Amino acid sequence: MSNQDARWMREALHLARSAQYRTRPNPAVGCVIVKDAQIIGRGATAPVGGSHAEVFALAQAGEHAQDATAYVTLEPCAHYGRTPPCAEALVKAKIARVVIATLDPNPLVAGKGQQILEHAGIYTTVGILEKESLELNQGFMKVMSGGLPYVRLKVAASLDGRTAMASGESKWITGVEARQDVQHWRAISGAVMTGVDTILADDAQLNVRQLMDTETGENIDLAQVVQPYRVVLDRQGRLPLSAQLLNQPNTVMVMTPYRAELEALGVIQLPVQSLSVLLQTLKSQYQIYDVLVESGATLATSFLRDGLVDELIQYIAPKYLGQSARALNQFDFDAMRQSVDFELFDVKQIGSDVRLRLRPIVKIPV
Amino acid sequence: MSNQDARWMREALHLARSAQYRTRPNPAVGCVIVKDAQIIGRGATAPVGGSHAEVFALAQAGEHAQDATAYVTLEPCAHYGRTPPCAEALVKAKIARVVIATLDPNPLVAGKGQQILEHAGIYTTVGILEKESLELNQGFMKVMSGGLPYVRLKVAASLDGRTAMASGESKWITGVEARQDVQHWRAISGAVMTGVDTILADDAQLNVRQLMDTETGENIDLAQVVQPYRVVLDRQGRLPLSAQLLNQPNTVMVMTPYRAELEALGVIQLPVQSLSVLLQTLKSQYQIYDVLVESGATLATSFLRDGLVDELIQYIAPKYLGQSARALNQFDFDAMRQSVDFELFDVKQIGSDVRLRLRPIVKIPV
Repeated sequence: MSNQDARWMREALHLARSAQYRTRPNPAVGCVIVKDAQIIGRGATAPVGGSHAEVFALAQAGEHAQDATAYVTLEPCAHYGRTPPCAEALVKAKIARVVIATLDPNPLVAGKGQQILEHAGIYTTVGILEKESLELNQGFMKVMSGGLPYVRLKVAASLDGRTAMASGESKWITGVEARQDVQHWRAISGAVMTGVDTILADDAQLNVRQLMDTETGENIDLAQVVQPYRVVLDRQGRLPLSAQLLNQPNTVMVMTPYRAELEALGVIQLPVQSLSVLLQTLKSQYQIYDVLVESGATLATSFLRDGLVDELIQYIAPKYLGQSARALNQFDFDAMRQSVDFELFDVKQIGSDVRLRLRPIVKIPV
Repeated sequence: MSNQDARWMREALHLARSAQYRTRPNPAVGCVIVKDAQIIGRGATAPVGGSHAEVFALAQAGEHAQDATAYVTLEPCAHYGRTPPCAEALVKAKIARVVIATLDPNPLVAGKGQQILEHAGIYTTVGILEKESLELNQGFMKVMSGGLPYVRLKVAASLDGRTAMASGESKWITGVEARQDVQHWRAISGAVMTGVDTILADDAQLNVRQLMDTETGENIDLAQVVQPYRVVLDRQGRLPLSAQLLNQPNTVMVMTPYRAELEALGVIQLPVQSLSVLLQTLKSQYQIYDVLVESGATLATSFLRDGLVDELIQYIAPKYLGQSARALNQFDFDAMRQSVDFELFDVKQIGSDVRLRLRPIVKIPV
């Protein structure tokens, strides 16, 4: 990889990132067109129904696109969907070379866009800043490769692993910056999921209320943000109709025995099913590719036990709540070898708290 | 502060750091002598009974020291102790300017060294990289200002705040890198303290067994290291004579009812007393200025409750041990406002674990 390629791909990733909250269920993609070491066209995916990144970048470059190099954070599409294939648009514009961060994750279509380019005599390079590009569209990548939605489990606990006092008192363990940080994870998710107990305890709304650009720290206009579905797991039908989250009922889903009053509000009702079937339903029926689980110990334990968590995001507040405060999970292990193990891949101080990001390690049973 | 001053002081701090494991109870100090933007003399504190940093640096510089600038990480001493006063040595060598990271912390002597220099017509500057210099000799600084020893409380727990399984199984929660990191904190301590239960459970030795240079990662010759005292709190006289740490009895102290068999081994016995009086004893009778507490939940809770902890060093292993595993502390709080609060000032990934360093926040009772 040349330094120049990485430099321009970084610009394309920057554009992709600027679109990350508005493109769902489409992936956020960025594109820059470079000629004589100058960017002559920039583009990012528009909201659903709008154009792809390449189209904007080519339009800006105009006829100067001839013999230029295009940097795209995802393989240009090869199929007629809501828009004509971007690979053909690049050919038509007589681009000389296309640098691609990562191929389309769907093994059935991966390489097709590249093939169109190569057949037209365009040089292609694949894999520049691939990790960064994958990170930006994790759910899309996982689902298009045939997987279930990408599940982030978010928990907030004290240094001694407690989420609330025995009385249930829990506002606030973490500081304002950590709570603000959670808004990002909600905003990149197709669904935010919790148990009915969280609603009963906190009357949580689970929507995106304030969002800051991860690079500049500036406030983002919420009108640009696709709000996630709020999914409440309520096997016994206990969700009160007075719950705050029902103020915007059209983005609420409840997994519950059928209730006519929820139907009347316009709430989507999901059959009571296992967590993995639920995830499958969210994916296939609602194009939900990223799920943020914000829950208490019970649901967190279930998701982990079922092996459905892709990423644990744990906020740790610098305080001891004591041994009688509520535990973070409900695992009951006798021996250390039974522990749930993670691989830590990101550590960051956020305000007065710490955020750890970890991947569960799949243990081979012995 | 000029960039040049910071540059040379950084060299002096580097030298001080190279001496940090061998000078106890003296502080680790570094000195460089600079002329025409060249270092012409370097020195660091020798082990007890040897010379101070300035003496080595001046000897190396020889007559070139005339009109040069000396950078010292601690105010040059003004009194005849084991060595003649360094301030006078600098005057005699006709140094033109002395840059000092921090004054002597003892308010009764602070500024005396600087005064000698100023009276001899030497320019002085104080406060260059002061924070770094203070950090290097925290116990010395605290005690010389009239305080108790600087207490570091080290705990290692899982992500869910557990230190062992219910059975007591605890080897190993953290990885080899984190356990290696603990050796540094032992090696800068005058005493490593634990409860007898830790000895009964793990037969812990608490000595420095392997040490790596914090800057280069190279192994340090243990012959150069002043081993800490190992202090066992044993109010009921339960320490078994077969305990491994008694293999080197001359660096063991036990706070216990008098036992003739310990006396016979050469173990120092301390009267059973409160933790704060014990710290006072360690300071005044044994010149112990830094204490590392490595203990279970009981002793950790006592130290925190008594407000005796200056720094909490918590290693967090990326695993969940479950709700029936042993808690990190024995606090019993009903309400969040009772929590023990900390200020986080250092976050670092160490191998597969995380190390947090925190300062307890003193709450004003309401």
